[in-house]
Order: sequence, then structure tokens, then C-alpha cells
Amino acid sequence: MKDIKVGIIGCGYWGPNLIRNFNDNQHTEIKYACDLSHERIDRIRLRYPFVRTTTDYKELLKDKDIHAVAIATPVFTHYKLVREALEAGKHVLVEKPLTSSVKEAERLVSIASRKKLILLVDHTFIYTGAIRKVKEFIATGELGEIYYFDSVRINLGLLQHDVNVIWDLAPHDISIMDFIVEEKPKSVVATGSSHTPHGIEDVAYITVKFMNNLIAHFHVNWLSPVKIRKIIIGGSKKMVVFDDLDPAEKVKIYDKGIKLSKSDKNSIYQSLIQYRTGDIYTPNIDSTEALKAEIEHFADCIKNEKTPITDGEAGLRVVRILEAANKSLKRAGVKILL
Amino acid sequence: MKDIKVGIIGCGYWGPNLIRNFNDNQHTEIKYACDLSHERIDRIRLRYPFVRTTTDYKELLKDKDIHAVAIATPVFTHYKLVREALEAGKHVLVEKPLTSSVKEAERLVSIASRKKLILLVDHTFIYTGAIRKVKEFIATGELGEIYYFDSVRINLGLLQHDVNVIWDLAPHDISIMDFIVEEKPKSVVATGSSHTPHGIEDVAYITVKFMNNLIAHFHVNWLSPVKIRKIIIGGSKKMVVFDDLDPAEKVKIYDKGIKLSKSDKNSIYQSLIQYRTGDIYTPNIDSTEALKAEIEHFADCIKNEKTPITDGEAGLRVVRILEAANKSLKRAGVKILL
Amino acid sequence: MKDIKVGIIGCGYWGPNLIRNFNDNQHTEIKYACDLSHERIDRIRLRYPFVRTTTDYKELLKDKDIHAVAIATPVFTHYKLVREALEAGKHVLVEKPLTSSVKEAERLVSIASRKKLILLVDHTFIYTGAIRKVKEFIATGELGEIYYFDSVRINLGLLQHDVNVIWDLAPHDISIMDFIVEEKPKSVVATGSSHTPHGIEDVAYITVKFMNNLIAHFHVNWLSPVKIRKIIIGGSKKMVVFDDLDPAEKVKIYDKGIKLSKSDKNSIYQSLIQYRTGDIYTPNIDSTEALKAEIEHFADCIKNEKTPITDGEAGLRVVRILEAANKSLKRAGVKILL
Amino acid sequence: MKDIKVGIIGCGYWGPNLIRNFNDNQHTEIKYACDLSHERIDRIRLRYPFVRTTTDYKELLKDKDIHAVAIATPVFTHYKLVREALEAGKHVLVEKPLTSSVKEAERLVSIASRKKLILLVDHTFIYTGAIRKVKEFIATGELGEIYYFDSVRINLGLLQHDVNVIWDLAPHDISIMDFIVEEKPKSVVATGSSHTPHGIEDVAYITVKFMNNLIAHFHVNWLSPVKIRKIIIGGSKKMVVFDDLDPAEKVKIYDKGIKLSKSDKNSIYQSLIQYRTGDIYTPNIDSTEALKAEIEHFADCIKNEKTPITDGEAGLRVVRILEAANKSLKRAGVKILL
Repeated sequence: MKDIKVGIIGCGYWGPNLIRNFNDNQHTEIKYACDLSHERIDRIRLRYPFVRTTTDYKELLKDKDIHAVAIATPVFTHYKLVREALEAGKHVLVEKPLTSSVKEAERLVSIASRKKLILLVDHTFIYTGAIRKVKEFIATGELGEIYYFDSVRINLGLLQHDVNVIWDLAPHDISIMDFIVEEKPKSVVATGSSHTPHGIEDVAYITVKFMNNLIAHFHVNWLSPVKIRKIIIGGSKKMVVFDDLDPAEKVKIYDKGIKLSKSDKNSIYQSLIQYRTGDIYTPNIDSTEALKAEIEHFADCIKNEKTPITDGEAGLRVVRILEAANKSLKRAGVKILL
Repeated sequence: MKDIKVGIIGCGYWGPNLIRNFNDNQHTEIKYACDLSHERIDRIRLRYPFVRTTTDYKELLKDKDIHAVAIATPVFTHYKLVREALEAGKHVLVEKPLTSSVKEAERLVSIASRKKLILLVDHTFIYTGAIRKVKEFIATGELGEIYYFDSVRINLGLLQHDVNVIWDLAPHDISIMDFIVEEKPKSVVATGSSHTPHGIEDVAYITVKFMNNLIAHFHVNWLSPVKIRKIIIGGSKKMVVFDDLDPAEKVKIYDKGIKLSKSDKNSIYQSLIQYRTGDIYTPNIDSTEALKAEIEHFADCIKNEKTPITDGEAGLRVVRILEAANKSLKRAGVKILL
Repeated sequence: MKDIKVGIIGCGYWGPNLIRNFNDNQHTEIKYACDLSHERIDRIRLRYPFVRTTTDYKELLKDKDIHAVAIATPVFTHYKLVREALEAGKHVLVEKPLTSSVKEAERLVSIASRKKLILLVDHTFIYTGAIRKVKEFIATGELGEIYYFDSVRINLGLLQHDVNVIWDLAPHDISIMDFIVEEKPKSVVATGSSHTPHGIEDVAYITVKFMNNLIAHFHVNWLSPVKIRKIIIGGSKKMVVFDDLDPAEKVKIYDKGIKLSKSDKNSIYQSLIQYRTGDIYTPNIDSTEALKAEIEHFADCIKNEKTPITDGEAGLRVVRILEAANKSLKRAGVKILL
Repeated sequence: MKDIKVGIIGCGYWGPNLIRNFNDNQHTEIKYACDLSHERIDRIRLRYPFVRTTTDYKELLKDKDIHAVAIATPVFTHYKLVREALEAGKHVLVEKPLTSSVKEAERLVSIASRKKLILLVDHTFIYTGAIRKVKEFIATGELGEIYYFDSVRINLGLLQHDVNVIWDLAPHDISIMDFIVEEKPKSVVATGSSHTPHGIEDVAYITVKFMNNLIAHFHVNWLSPVKIRKIIIGGSKKMVVFDDLDPAEKVKIYDKGIKLSKSDKNSIYQSLIQYRTGDIYTPNIDSTEALKAEIEHFADCIKNEKTPITDGEAGLRVVRILEAANKSLKRAGVKILL
């Protein structure tokens, strides 16, 4: 029974996907849709004649019937809109990244907890069958100690004008890393370059270091002629490759690696290192649309007062790395401690 | 007519390839082969009964009949062996990297020029049909201004014990960049990590910046479950992808990119950036073995007193970046000016 | 202005796509939707509250306001429904294959021409940018004489119960061949096998021969663990590969082939045959949804009394090959003349 | 200890590979090499100065010291050479196909058994780690009943002048099928076409039927712009794909298929068929050179009087299908019973 009434703010690229999924969900009902563009609003009204529309989000927030708000607007507006929505007593689902600064993210987290409201950050990948499978597998310990996390997300993509390629693309992979790697990141080094007049970086490389020898790296690029979305996770026992563009074999688990005799720390003899090349295993992946699972989870958290997997804290952890990476980038690769 | 008599020092992994190609070349004759291992020497003698063998390279250098020496030994021995070979009046072909330090490389370059001898560094890729085709294409200006050079060379590879993954794998791609990009590199930032007791880095990421907005990046990894050898070069007009593992389509030229109106520097309007996605063109590549072409070139340089494409200067430029990258790596990503 | 009123018969798998596209088209308006299943009808009503629905197609055909009918029902019902729709004076767009027999197809063609009504068979691929590009290219003569047309369409697919794998999958590729190859087919040989109790073939191989040396072959399979949708067209000058599953490079043109000296017919000397391996060219493909273009074309044919590219004649030609293939299949590969 | 003295007849394309492997094998010693071309013989002498060479194979057969002969000559010469070698008391390893007719193959088989000599047909693929793994897997019964065997071997290949594409390429895949499928083939239907003056078929399609519902199909083509070497084996429980061109994942086992309730033979209800899509498993493959393993096996058969895996009988079974396929091809697809 559709007992959670929802309002949407932002009906641009992602908003319509949110509307479609809220509409299809058995617990949620779209009551309101808001956007500054009349054209976008008309498009929504055409498809969903029963949805009330407005260009003034305050009107939507005032509506007492609405329990939850979904926000799909440009990053720099997130803080203001989420804050007001929470203050108005609404549960919130907000696009990633949560905010454009750590300070803002921290405030939203504390408001949400003070008001005992659900704040779910739309780290969509966490709700895919593929990433859940990877998490599951690593949780079993079969991968062993994680050695590295290498991510590439490049394409001839839409250059943003409010944020650079780090804020636009890296949240996906950083949220995946945050979900999978349970270590605490220590420092960030980022390099990159801009090739457009307004100086917004379109190519960037981010290294994140951890307490142990674990290293994570993110390559994001808006100017690539080829589309690549691949994550390689190297472990002491096995290794995993996630290729988001492979429809048939998204996740592969490699029984490959090296074997060390830790005994003799100072030895430099080859004989102490052995290579292992074994079988490859490609698990069958649940292909449910991630957003469907995410909204189901959002409804469940609201109804049963659960904490979302991708709550404000997760959103904050991601913003913390993004902010540090951006700072390092602006200072030509200076190491930023977290 | 085989009028260039050659001696080989080092008959391990790469040496036998050098011997085979010197043997097949019409201008060069293998006279001497040297290695410290008797077993390796026996293997050479079995296949080439007519070649003299020794475990003492000095013996080989003393031989007045020998015009040229090919050196395929561990990196740390290059300086000493090349220097003595040059001092003995031999032309030299030496494995990459030229040396393990800039100072050593500079000395060898000056000795070679003082003695008017050919010093060719075995940057093999420069002699492949694929890289020559890429160079050729970029030289036409069709690519426009080079925006970025992104290289990935990863595999479950043989961990070295005298050098880390940067010194082992990066020379290939840095030499390719040095050959293709004619700008002068400005600074280097490198990060990485080791996962073996002896602390030699097995994963590393190198960023090289240039005077303009050009950025180059190198990902080298000995612990990858998948083998990738790919270079993406983004330009203002077109883009190129070199995939060394694609037997049928090694080089692809993409008529893709963005179009900017440079007029309005401060503008941040989308409308000023347009995307171009056009055709892809895959040129037919000359598949001659690179080493064959390289040795032909070596002989040609000796006979006609030409300067090798990959001379000592090229070797030095590569070592300069390697040394800086290594320094940055050891200091957790500090920027090193070149 | 939406002046063509349309009724849909069959709202199962494909019907909703037709409705969506008719709804989005500027010239067509969905007025009626019919299906025997109440559940399907409810789903349509939910998304398109303004569409009248019924379980009785006759009701829909009686409606004088309706100009055109789209039929997306099981094959065996096509003949009856299309015939009645034409008799009722409606233009018709019908799923492929047109009918389950040549005789039926012939009748529909003659009725349509007698009534001067548009009969468009939904050979969707003909309206894709990829196939139009292939046709375009071959029309230029650059391919030379067509030597062979080889098609593979395999997958772990939904076994049908009214038709076998030939009637289900082959219409796609036969319609593509019919569109691209302008020769007249001469004979058909088909082999296959069934692995289910009801004896419906799930694997089949069809060879179509033409007057000259051109040969076409179709591999269709419902039981393949891998999905392949590939067509290779060999010509005397160049060759084309269409890979429907490659999002980035659907069509590739190979400057490859053999060169013959036709002079000496009896010669068997190698020297008379030379191999040519040249560049590969991957044209940029228009990615407009095929069904959108098809419905635009349908509307254009209705408004301007044009003959559809995929008219009844085209549908008939495809059915002629399907029927012959099926006959050959049932008789273990006996050659059937067309 | 190298106690088996071997002579080679035919030093063209494949001969040198045989020589190299016989030379490296611990039990076999190359004593003689024969070819009609002086140039080829000179090339052998250069690499193997210790090998006696001749242009007259009879001289080689007369040599009492020689225990075994390897024959790598054109197909039409196999019968004569193998027969004379056997009559001369030599064990024989012969290129595939064994002969160009069933009658000849039968004679060689009976001579070999009468003379108690080893006759090994060089069905190289049977000795690859990949095909052995597939055989192994199917032998466990995990695949269930074999539904189909589909093979594609196409490339822009060297057109032969003594044999057509069936005799040239199909032996590989037919020998693999013969090794893996233990059923007895029942009939053959083949179609194809020639596009060269001398009328030798360069494209062909072969269907082989068995007693049960098992169907095998072979696509061989000399005029393909792309190189494909793939075999798909569908089973009632699992399915296997062998892709010879995938260096990293040659063999994949798919836990995919359909589940039937055999109970109700006449039922046509969907509900009786269920789809299964499960995991994919890619076993690690032994990468030993096939020819090395084959020659080791040949030596073992000679020393210990074993029957080769690919003996004359296997060669005969393959020739039986080739001859039938060729007959069907020449008669435009008439079914030939075996």
C-alpha cells in the first residue's frame, strides 16, 4: 500500500528515473514534482498526469502530506535544499555527491540525526547486484588482504560547468571503494588538467593511501574517445575485476596472485616469491535495476527506522575524499592528509 | 655482406632475441656471446655452434675484430659495461633503461660523442609499425594539440629484485611518449606501493606535467590479474588508442573530441563546447618484428655514421623521468621538477 | 498535428514499444489498444489513461475514426487480423514475419494493393542507422560483387511454442539480406534439431543460394550460452561486418580481400591470387531508435501515399524463404527451389 | 636418451615445427630431412647442421637406422608416402588429413596394423591443454547429454590449390568433434561456394547428424575479413565455449541451459521449460605446445607399443566425414549417409 508520499525536486537528467521508480514502488507515491524549467515540468505532467507540479520547491516542502523528498539538482544546491527539507521534517534521498564541502555534509548529517530523519545519499552502484556480489565475496575473506583498488571511469562525457571531472565522476568509484574497503583512508594526492577556457579540470588522477600498504587510484576523464568503467581489486589471495560495460561478465574473480614467505624479511631471492595462476570464476549477477533496489531500501528504512546503507555518514566520507582530492589537484599534487 | 662483427653480453631473457636477429641480419655477424651462466652459454652454443662463447666480457671487449657490442644485462650493470665497451672503441646497443641514474647516462652520452661511436638504447617499441604509425599520424597535425597521454601497462609479471615496477615497466611507455610528444616535461609526481617483504614497489602511478596543459600519466603494475597494454592520446582534433594486445586493431584513430570557441575566455556556457563523435579509422600496421628493424637501423647508423632514433640522448631523457618518478615515489608523491 | 489515429492489437512484449513510439510521434495518436489479457490492458491504461482499451479487436476495427492499425500478435494470427483490418479500410503495420505461409502473404499483398492501403511489415532492422549505413555503402559499389552473406543470431532465448527458431529469429536477418542483396534467391537448404519434448527446432542452419556464386547462410539458435548477433558480408573489393552487440563499433568496413587475374580460368597457380589486407573503417552510426524512424516512415507513407521500404512485397519475399527453409528443415536438408 | 631416429619428409610450412620439436624431445633424434626444394633444405641445414638432407624420400626410407618418419607434404601425396614408409617398416606421424579418400585411409590403417607399426595422424588440437580440458569436463557428465556442436573457423587464409576449404580447415574441428563426441555420425549435408577462377570452394557449411538429436555444424571460410576460431558445445546441463583466439580465457563453462519436464511429451506449455542462467567458470589451461605433447606421445607409443590417441582409425573417421561433406558439397547439399 502506497503510504509514503514523495516529492521530487529536480526533473533534469536523473529526476525522471527517480520518478519512474518511486511510481513503480509499492510503498511510495509521487505526489509532487518540482523544477525551475516549465518545459521539464510539462514533460513530467504529460507522462504522470496525476502528479502535482510546481516551480517553487518551498511549496512542495510546505505540503504536510509529503513524507519524503528526493533531490536531483546541481551539487551546489544540495546543502540548502537538503537542509530545508530536513528542517521541514521530510526524509531525504539526495543525488551524489551529498554536498560540495565537508562542512556542509557534516551539518546535514547532524541535522538528520537530530531530527531522527532518514538521509540517504544516492550512491547508486552500491545497490547493483554486481557491487553487492563483490562486497559479499570480499567479506568472505577469500580475497585475503586488499593490496590495491584501481578504478578507471572515462568517456567522451558531458563537461559540467559547476564542478570538475573529480566531483562529477569520482563519487561513483569512491563510494564503491568506501563500501568495499573497510580501512580508513590516510592521505590523498591528485593531479589533472583542464583543456577548456573556463579551466575546469576534465582529466584527473587520484591516489588514496591507507594505514597499511593498501593503495587506491581513480582515473576520471571527460575527454576519452573510448568508454571504460573498470575496477580491479588486487588481494593477497585472489583478485577481482568489475567491468561495468560487460553485459555478460560484469564481475570476474581470479584465482591468481603471488605467494610470499614472510619469514625472511630481508631476503631478496626470487625463490621466496611464487606466482599463482588459477581458474577464473564469473558469478551470475542479479540484474535488478539498482535504483529500484535503492528506493525499496529507502522505503524500508523509513517504515522500519533503519539506517540506510548509504546514509549521510557514507556521503560525508565520500565528500571528505573529494574535497581533499580537489585541494590536492588545485595545488599540483600536494599530499593532503585526511 | 656481414661486415659488422658483433658481441653479445648477457644471454638471459632478451639476449637470445638479439642473437637471433643479429644472426638473421645481412650486415651483422655474431662473433661472440658472453654470460656468467655456463648453462645459458651452452644453450647458445647448441643453437649457434659457430659463435665463440665466454664468461668474461673483458675477453670479448679485447677482441679487435668486434665492431659492436649488444648489452642485455641487469640495469645496475649497464653503466660499467657500456662505458668499458665505448672506451674499447665498440659501438653499443644497450637494453633499456640506459642506466639507473641520470649522472651515469650523461657520462655515457658524452663518452659516446667524444669517441664518435654509435650508442643505441633498445627502446624496442619505437621500432614497431604501430608506434611509427602513431608518430606519423600525429606529425601530420591531424590530432591537433595533444591534451593528454594516458598509458596502462599491467600484468601478473615477474617481480624484479634489483629494480621496482617503475624502472622495469615504465621505460617502454615513457620512451613512446618521448618519441611522440615533442614538448619538454616540467614535473613528475609518482605514487605507489609495495606488497612484498623486500619493499620493492609493485604498483605505481606516474603523472608528468608539461609547459602547456598537456598531462601524461603512466600506470604500471606487476600484480594485475588481467594483462593491459594500452595508450590513449587525446588531442584537440582527434584521438588515438594504441592497444598492443589487439592483434587485429592495434591502432585506432577516433574522429572524436570537443569544439571550443576560444573567443570568450570567461564564458561558462555549455553552448561554447560542442561534442564531436565521428568515424573511427584503423590503419593497417606493418608487422615486421621491431627488433629486426632496430638492428637494421643500428647497422645503418654504424655504416653511414647516422644518429640513432633512440640514441643516448633519448635514453637519457627517459632515465631523467624515471629517476624523478622514483624520487617522488619514495617521498610519497612530492612533486619533482625536471 | 496528430492527424493519424491508430489502434494497437496485441500489447504483449512488442506492443508497448509500438504504443510508446506512436504516442511520441507528432503525426500519430494512439486511440485504441486491444489485448485478450485484462492484466496487460490494465498496464497500458495505467501508463496511458487517455487510450481506450478493449479485449475485442473487432470493436477497434469498427471504429471509423481509426486510420491505421498496428498488429503485434502471434504469427499464426497475422493473416486473419491483417486481412480484416485491410477489409475494414485501415492502413496496417504488422509484426514480422508477415504471415506463416506464402499463400497468406500473397493474399494480403493483393488485398492491400486493391484497397490502396499501406501495408508495412515491421522489419525493424531496416530502420536502424547501422543497416542503412551498410546498404548505403554497398550501393556505392565499393564492396564490389557480393561473395557471401553470413549471419549468426544465437542466444539463450525464449523458446516459442507456435513457431520454431527459424520463424522466430531468421526473419530479422533474412529481411536484412533482402534489403541489402538485390539478387534473386534460387534455392534453400536447411538443417536443424530439436531438444525439447514438443519437437520444435531450437537450432537451425539455413543456406540460400543465388544465380551467381553468392551464398547466404543463417545460423539461428535458442540454446546458446553466449549471445551473438553478427553479419559478415564478403565482397570482391571490400568486406563488411555488422556486430549488433558492439555499442561503439556496430559496422566495420574492411579493405581486405583477394585479387584475381580472371584471364586464365584454368590456371591453378598461387601467383594468380593475391591477398589484400588494408585499413579498417568504422563509420559513425545514427543511433535513432529504429522503431521511431519506422513509425515516422509509416506516417509519411500514409500521408503522402508512398510505398513503404518494408512493404507487403518485402514481407512476402521473407516469408517465401522462411517457408522454403522450414520445408527443407522438415525433410532433413532437401534442397528447395524458390 | 635419444634412441628414436626420425626422418622428416616435407620441410615447407609445418615441417620446421616438427623438426624443432623432434629435436627438443629427449627420446627422438632428427637424422634426415627431405624436401624437393633445395632452398628449403638449405634453410634446414643452416639451423641444424647435423641433420642429413636429401631431395629423394626413398633414400631416407632406405636408411635402416631410421625408426620413424614424419610426413608434412600436400594431402594428395600422403597415401603413397605413408604406405611406402610403413612398408619400409617405419613408424609414421602424418599431417592431417590422413588421406584424400576413405579407401586410401582404410588401406593405411590395415597396413599399419598388419605391420604392427605406429600410425599417428597429426590432429594437433587433440594435444592442446584446452581441448583436453573440454574432453575431461564432458567426460565427467557435468555437461549432460550433448545437444549440439557448433564450430566456426574463418579467416582471410591462404587459398590452397590442391584442396578446397573443407579439406584444408575442417579436419581441425572434425577431429576435435571426433575426440569429444562419442556418438556415431549418421549423415552429412554440406553447402558452399567458390569465388575464384579454378572453382575451388572457399566458403563452406557442413551439418553432421547423429542417431539422437545431436547436431554438429562446421563453418569454414578462407575469405573472412575477421579471424574466428570458436566452438560452442550445448549440453542438457551445461555448455562450453572454446575460443582459440582468446589467450586468457580459451575455455569457458557455462552453467546455463533449459530444464524440461520430460513427463508430458505432448505438452506445449511454456511452464514445462525453464531457463537456467548461472555462473561461468574459466579453468586454467595447460599451455604446453601441442606438438611437444604430441611428439612425446608418439615416442611413448613407439617405445611402449601403445595405440596413439589420434591413430589411423581416428584419421579414417575424420576422412570419412570430409569425403561425405565434399560429395554433398559437389551435389549442392544432397544428404550423404555415413
